[in-house]
Amino acid sequence: MTRADCDVIGIGNAIVDVLSHADDDFLAANGIEKGAMTLIDASQAEALYGRMGPGLEISGGSAANTMAGVASLGGNAAYIGKVRADQLGAVFAHDIRAAGVRFSTAPTTTGAPTARCLILVTPDAQRSMSTFLGACVELGPEDIVEADIASAQVTYLEGYLWDPPRAKEAFRKAAAIAGGAGRKVALSLSDAFCVHRHRDEFLELVAGPVDILFANEQEILALHQKLRDMRHDVNGRLANIVAAAELMRMRPESAAERLQMLLDQPHKAAESIAEFSRAFEASFGLKRA
Amino acid sequence: MTRADCDVIGIGNAIVDVLSHADDDFLAANGIEKGAMTLIDASQAEALYGRMGPGLEISGGSAANTMAGVASLGGNAAYIGKVRADQLGAVFAHDIRAAGVRFSTAPTTTGAPTARCLILVTPDAQRSMSTFLGACVELGPEDIVEADIASAQVTYLEGYLWDPPRAKEAFRKAAAIAGGAGRKVALSLSDAFCVHRHRDEFLELVAGPVDILFANEQEILALHQKLRDMRHDVNGRLANIVAAAELMRMRPESAAERLQMLLDQPHKAAESIAEFSRAFEASFGLKRA
Repeated sequence: MTRADCDVIGIGNAIVDVLSHADDDFLAANGIEKGAMTLIDASQAEALYGRMGPGLEISGGSAANTMAGVASLGGNAAYIGKVRADQLGAVFAHDIRAAGVRFSTAPTTTGAPTARCLILVTPDAQRSMSTFLGACVELGPEDIVEADIASAQVTYLEGYLWDPPRAKEAFRKAAAIAGGAGRKVALSLSDAFCVHRHRDEFLELVAGPVDILFANEQEILALHQKLRDMRHDVNGRLANIVAAAELMRMRPESAAERLQMLLDQPHKAAESIAEFSRAFEASFGLKRA
Repeated sequence: MTRADCDVIGIGNAIVDVLSHADDDFLAANGIEKGAMTLIDASQAEALYGRMGPGLEISGGSAANTMAGVASLGGNAAYIGKVRADQLGAVFAHDIRAAGVRFSTAPTTTGAPTARCLILVTPDAQRSMSTFLGACVELGPEDIVEADIASAQVTYLEGYLWDPPRAKEAFRKAAAIAGGAGRKVALSLSDAFCVHRHRDEFLELVAGPVDILFANEQEILALHQKLRDMRHDVNGRLANIVAAAELMRMRPESAAERLQMLLDQPHKAAESIAEFSRAFEASFGLKRA
């Protein structure tokens, strides 16, 4: 393994944020889920922008913001993401480079404009995001430069990359290169809504190429919702045993009809526990000795 | 005079601001005059943007901001200004309309992009502006809709309009329509540097069509620098008289050679006072009875 030239290379959706204030009534009237990141298409973006208040534009994107943070702390950071060769794309490219992050992904010259995220901030300081992915849908494996990934200590991927269609191929290619070069792969789960959209694939990634997982409480609970459901199932079996025994004690005349249930539940509970254990081990990529 | 449909219609340079932080060394290294608004061309704008830090974009422009302020206070405001039909032009148009200001100036479809103002904020909170006028140079009298001006109680003009070449024709056309319709014309002097660039024309405007003048201390002193110089001249003549008399008293042997000076100064002082009075009256559009 050669010396790493770069601390972290991030891959994500390259987005310009448009921030504005709004009240809860505006969110409700426009069908915006409060606190969430919702994907919208070009016509929805145009309609919402037309209704929202004066905005303030600032370059954003989850992984891009993280790389700017790494650079601001003195780290050597790079970024891969797709803008179009338009004014907002030039703004994005300027801002991330001015933040000290290497960025050389070729912009698209046809198709949708640079992505933008319409962010409405309510008086309680919560933000609700409506994202038009625009040129981000063009990010693909051809944008992953092998030497850049191989020379970075960590390749950092945002979960939102699972939203555009071809970015996951870029993600998988980058993860494979990083793994082959003995580097680390990090994944941010992005947000709980994103996890709900891509849970099964994220579980595979966590069990597979991902070495470092970033998640807040809502995100990790969303990722392991199946485990939670299974544990709930085990608890339900155990509760059934207690309930059957209690009913037999209180109403001895019905003991015969409860007996079969009492006998069935321990087997079902054992099955549920075994299933939970298999799923738990698989989720975390554990292998039995 | 018909009822005014509109409280104020503003005419100005339609600009998107790009804000970033910088220190005094950066200003000095890039030849930026601190606290001023300096005009730059496209290549200077590109070079400076490439050197400055990550930015934050927000619609600006002096008169446009003022109209947004009028609307936010419940006034009925309109705006005339020129953007190009590009992404930043769409941002400007959205923002001013979303602020509740009527704006229907046709955007240009060729030529320079929408104007932007690169604003560097130093740690002392002073801002230094470098403006690329872009599409603003296309604003001309054809953009002044007579009915809009005639139906506004006040036509508000920013001094910066004297920077692009044809905007002053728009300005004069609007002022003439407003005057003809019995409406008021207001002028903001914009900034002292702008006044230095256009002092003589601004003095003519103040003496002519302008009914309401907005200026801070620096701006009004810059506008009337000639009056200040003239008053200084009068004071100089009076000081010469005192000095000559004093010298004659102290050194009686040189009285003969001082006498002519003593006799000349009162005439010159009287001339200077008369000149000052004429200029003062002209500056404020005063007419002798």
